[in-house]
Amino acid sequence: MNATDAVHPMWLPAGATAHLAGRTVAVVGEAPLADTVRGEVRSAGAVSEGTPDVVLGTATALEAAGITAPSAPEAAESFAIGRRDGVTVVSARDAAGLLYGWFALVRLGAAALDDALVDTPHSPAHAVRMLDHWDNVDRHEVMGQIERGYAGDSIFFANGRVRDELSRVAEYARLLASIGVNRVAVNNVNVHRREARLLTDDLDELARIAAVFRPWGIRLHLSVTFASPILLGGLDTSDPLDARVASWWAEATHRVYATIPDFGGYLVKADSEGQPGPFAYGRTHADGANLLARALAPHGGMVHWRAFVYNHHQDWRDRRTDRARAAYDHFTPLDGLFDDNVVVQIKYGPMDFQTREPVSPLFSGLNRTRQALELQVTQEYTGHQLHAVYLGVQWAEILRFRPFGDAGPALGSLVRGGLAAVSNVGDDVFWTGHPLAQANLYAYGRLAWDPDADPLAILDEWIGLTFGTDETVRATIHEILDDSWRVYESYTAPLGVGFMVRPGSHYGPDVDGYEYTPWGTYHFADRDGIGVDRSVATGTGFAGQYPEPWRTAYERPETTPDELLLFFHHVPYGHRLHDGTTVIQHIYDTRFAGLAAVERKRDAWAAIAGRVPEAVFARVSERLDEQLRSAREWRDQLNSYFLRKSGVPDAKGRTIY
Amino acid sequence: MNATDAVHPMWLPAGATAHLAGRTVAVVGEAPLADTVRGEVRSAGAVSEGTPDVVLGTATALEAAGITAPSAPEAAESFAIGRRDGVTVVSARDAAGLLYGWFALVRLGAAALDDALVDTPHSPAHAVRMLDHWDNVDRHEVMGQIERGYAGDSIFFANGRVRDELSRVAEYARLLASIGVNRVAVNNVNVHRREARLLTDDLDELARIAAVFRPWGIRLHLSVTFASPILLGGLDTSDPLDARVASWWAEATHRVYATIPDFGGYLVKADSEGQPGPFAYGRTHADGANLLARALAPHGGMVHWRAFVYNHHQDWRDRRTDRARAAYDHFTPLDGLFDDNVVVQIKYGPMDFQTREPVSPLFSGLNRTRQALELQVTQEYTGHQLHAVYLGVQWAEILRFRPFGDAGPALGSLVRGGLAAVSNVGDDVFWTGHPLAQANLYAYGRLAWDPDADPLAILDEWIGLTFGTDETVRATIHEILDDSWRVYESYTAPLGVGFMVRPGSHYGPDVDGYEYTPWGTYHFADRDGIGVDRSVATGTGFAGQYPEPWRTAYERPETTPDELLLFFHHVPYGHRLHDGTTVIQHIYDTRFAGLAAVERKRDAWAAIAGRVPEAVFARVSERLDEQLRSAREWRDQLNSYFLRKSGVPDAKGRTIY
Repeated sequence: MNATDAVHPMWLPAGATAHLAGRTVAVVGEAPLADTVRGEVRSAGAVSEGTPDVVLGTATALEAAGITAPSAPEAAESFAIGRRDGVTVVSARDAAGLLYGWFALVRLGAAALDDALVDTPHSPAHAVRMLDHWDNVDRHEVMGQIERGYAGDSIFFANGRVRDELSRVAEYARLLASIGVNRVAVNNVNVHRREARLLTDDLDELARIAAVFRPWGIRLHLSVTFASPILLGGLDTSDPLDARVASWWAEATHRVYATIPDFGGYLVKADSEGQPGPFAYGRTHADGANLLARALAPHGGMVHWRAFVYNHHQDWRDRRTDRARAAYDHFTPLDGLFDDNVVVQIKYGPMDFQTREPVSPLFSGLNRTRQALELQVTQEYTGHQLHAVYLGVQWAEILRFRPFGDAGPALGSLVRGGLAAVSNVGDDVFWTGHPLAQANLYAYGRLAWDPDADPLAILDEWIGLTFGTDETVRATIHEILDDSWRVYESYTAPLGVGFMVRPGSHYGPDVDGYEYTPWGTYHFADRDGIGVDRSVATGTGFAGQYPEPWRTAYERPETTPDELLLFFHHVPYGHRLHDGTTVIQHIYDTRFAGLAAVERKRDAWAAIAGRVPEAVFARVSERLDEQLRSAREWRDQLNSYFLRKSGVPDAKGRTIY
Repeated sequence: MNATDAVHPMWLPAGATAHLAGRTVAVVGEAPLADTVRGEVRSAGAVSEGTPDVVLGTATALEAAGITAPSAPEAAESFAIGRRDGVTVVSARDAAGLLYGWFALVRLGAAALDDALVDTPHSPAHAVRMLDHWDNVDRHEVMGQIERGYAGDSIFFANGRVRDELSRVAEYARLLASIGVNRVAVNNVNVHRREARLLTDDLDELARIAAVFRPWGIRLHLSVTFASPILLGGLDTSDPLDARVASWWAEATHRVYATIPDFGGYLVKADSEGQPGPFAYGRTHADGANLLARALAPHGGMVHWRAFVYNHHQDWRDRRTDRARAAYDHFTPLDGLFDDNVVVQIKYGPMDFQTREPVSPLFSGLNRTRQALELQVTQEYTGHQLHAVYLGVQWAEILRFRPFGDAGPALGSLVRGGLAAVSNVGDDVFWTGHPLAQANLYAYGRLAWDPDADPLAILDEWIGLTFGTDETVRATIHEILDDSWRVYESYTAPLGVGFMVRPGSHYGPDVDGYEYTPWGTYHFADRDGIGVDRSVATGTGFAGQYPEPWRTAYERPETTPDELLLFFHHVPYGHRLHDGTTVIQHIYDTRFAGLAAVERKRDAWAAIAGRVPEAVFARVSERLDEQLRSAREWRDQLNSYFLRKSGVPDAKGRTIY
């Protein structure tokens, strides 16, 4: 296919279902989602008449039809796959499981029809697997149509309203269903004036999107502003304890459900970076979240309430205030006060989607609250989809983190509210700007379903679906992506200190760019050393927000993992890491190595010219060139900055400008 | 008056002509500009019948009428004032001189009618005294309607075209005439697509502006793009040596003069910051400028050709390239090759309107070329009209600089092409955002007429005209403005090193903001020292572009004026200035002193509440608060940056964060 002629199919090109073409596939039972699967069967070139090669059905339907089947897990959306008498049987708990079972057959490839196939149950780790779009209806004068979007304009909105033509949304819904995503919030959490009105004025239009999502098992969510009763209802307050406010929300929500019966719920950014919230009325975030929860509860809806609350007017001179502490300080006193249909949505780290942060202590600080882990698929701080950075490896590391130590649960199972992530998709012909950034969307869905999955196995699965069976292509893309997150880390901000990006855009280096700003994001580099002392003994006390064993580990430089050293400690440039290298030499070494790695990746890609579609090759080539240019800028600016400041020459005598 | 009700009258309130009210003023002779003066006479409440207290006329007209008069200088636009038999007589060389003579009477106040008045000749130092507006017709998505404008939108353009209502332009023209400005370029030197079309599509509209200017002795100029033959003429080239291009310009210019017979000429920014120019065709800037000059010459028009040509894609790693050298290197080889009606317009310093730079060596490098000195009234790098900064003091220092040493001419007389400056005016009710920024516009006009004038006397004149006779008000405004340029310098970039502003906006501190960018504006601060070595012996050689005595003076730190030390030399923080203070201690001391001075200025203004119009008081108060906040930010960020980098504590033990 030629990407200049048609939208790229992502991981579902015709080749992905080639093993099912011509086969007889029976779908047993009646349900709207069963019809969706029937449509997939037809699209794959399979037939429904004749002796089946594959049978799919809900457990109930299969039993009624007298078909023996592997046992589907009890959980909603689950399914099991197995072979019975030379037939592959998918037994699903419900119609959604049927859909997910179908896509499992797609992923399996030829193995799906092999007698060696053993019975395998599949069950999502979490009921809610969500994508958040930061799409605006109108173009924002600074942020554009999609805030932190690097792949064109919104697929939902154009010309100040919902698009007339939603075929792109339908393709997207199918892609999301194939990786298990079942909720989508369609608009930006920073809810501007026009977007506020989606809640009231655009319900019929939103219903059109919901109708496109529905056959793919996806429920529509909406970001709303806490000031809606004022902005939309003409009230003089949005105080959550005011009865008029509660009744306004109840009525508005009633109207939403009258139009969209399976509406998912509200996503709210309150008292955060200028968004309105309950603080204006002296109320807590539990008061605020419960207000919306009670409007939604009668209809089965939920509230995603973001924990991203901090002072973004901090005085950089004030070294006692620590933004990293903010979410924990705000939310732990409220533990147990949130209604059941509230999910507190917590960014993975205490700052803001940096390439490397510790896992937020709020996850272990809330024990009687449903939490969702929020990840960022869109590459705000990780190269704007101009740099090839496979984030699956980062997310797997986060999901496997054990907040209470080895004996406790992994984060991936702790977050009862499931996962949410900011989408990286726009109307770009490749959906994601960088074609290789499709892997991140894919990995997000797969990890949300199974947080224990191996991110490199997921990547391999994505490569096979997207690029087919060319082993040279497979090996090359692994070479580019497998270690790409750590390579990106190695040429950007060092040792967990974060930021050092250009203010505003968050692309490219500016070591001091955020150093004297109100954003609370500092590195405190001086001629002697660098880093933020967050210890209990001498610092901001942030380390003390963790339970054992982490509070002890993070308290001292010696027991802090190197990659987080500067997040937790201010150390001299001569401080030695666990491998004996000094901090300053580590900075130089990793920056030189990082750039060299990008050069190798670019060369590796160049060598597969002709083996991937021309448009994909050209787009990736162009982005790798930019990644190389940018990585060189990072290397040289950081090395120059730290040489000028520390005065310590590179032990290996390389050129530092 | 209440500024919320009406546009502020700047320095021509009713009170400014109170001494002429009720007097008999005779204007002798016929000319359109004489009628303008008659209108002024009426507006001032003077009468024309009866025995005159004042007589104004051209020398010829006075002689014909048998009126004895002081002798007017020979130069165009000149006049003389004197007393004859109890009558004040203004004798003008021409009708423009009549107009300027009238406003001289206004400035004189009661002294204009005093028998002590002695004969005084007035003659402009330069025939061309120009203001350049960086106004766009459309709103630019980054720069807004006025590039580097801090006083609202354009008074010329609205809704994508010339304003229907030009009464504000008429007021402006009168104000400009009163200070001797006689040329106005109405649009931005960065000529965007819409603005390019002014030259062809909007001539009738521009003619309306020219008609408003004409009675005030002002000629309209236009910024044009060098690519006009391509953009507007449909040619495939704008090569200055291509006959089709020359003929396109000749015809386009002919049409301009057919519509605006007194059109002034073209202003061109070519091969500069992305604007097209002759380099694309391998031609010189003399080829480019002469192309336009020859189209204009038959009509008496002139070209202002900017010398602001440099590489804005410099690699910061490259320490041999020096942006400061660029204008000299580009233009001195062309000396003598420009047509007579070309003026090479040179920014006062070699960089870009910094608070402190050396005077550009290009002025002494061109000896057979008409040069104009370009100043910036709009406060791009000097506080955005939020900080009170009286630039007259800076300009006077520049104008008095003697490029060839004490025995040679001052810059103010060297620039045969006159002066040009970027206007600070918009549709703000105070015209200039900060009411005290009106003083800069006033001073520019007065210094363009007389470069030797004392800038503090000009300021005093402006205060009297604008605020009247309250001596407390007069003293307070002097306290705020007299030393305000040096105070601004004292809390911003130190010792001539420049920049350290936020990239893009150029407001507020960001010490490293431009340090690793392509703009060629670096300070090279490291843990040991700071500054740019521009010596011949060890640096970029820029100092060698000056003739003696400056090349020798600037070559060594010991003989370089302290205020330019870091522009010319990289020195250790312990380097001692001429007063014995170290560079680092100077940085600390001046920043503390600068902030304290702003505090005193704010307090001084607060003390005259009730003595100035309420709206003026409120606006100035609000801006002084912002200046104080911003100055504190400058002080603390710079001190913190240099303490962190140098490790040298403040000798006086003050708080550095």
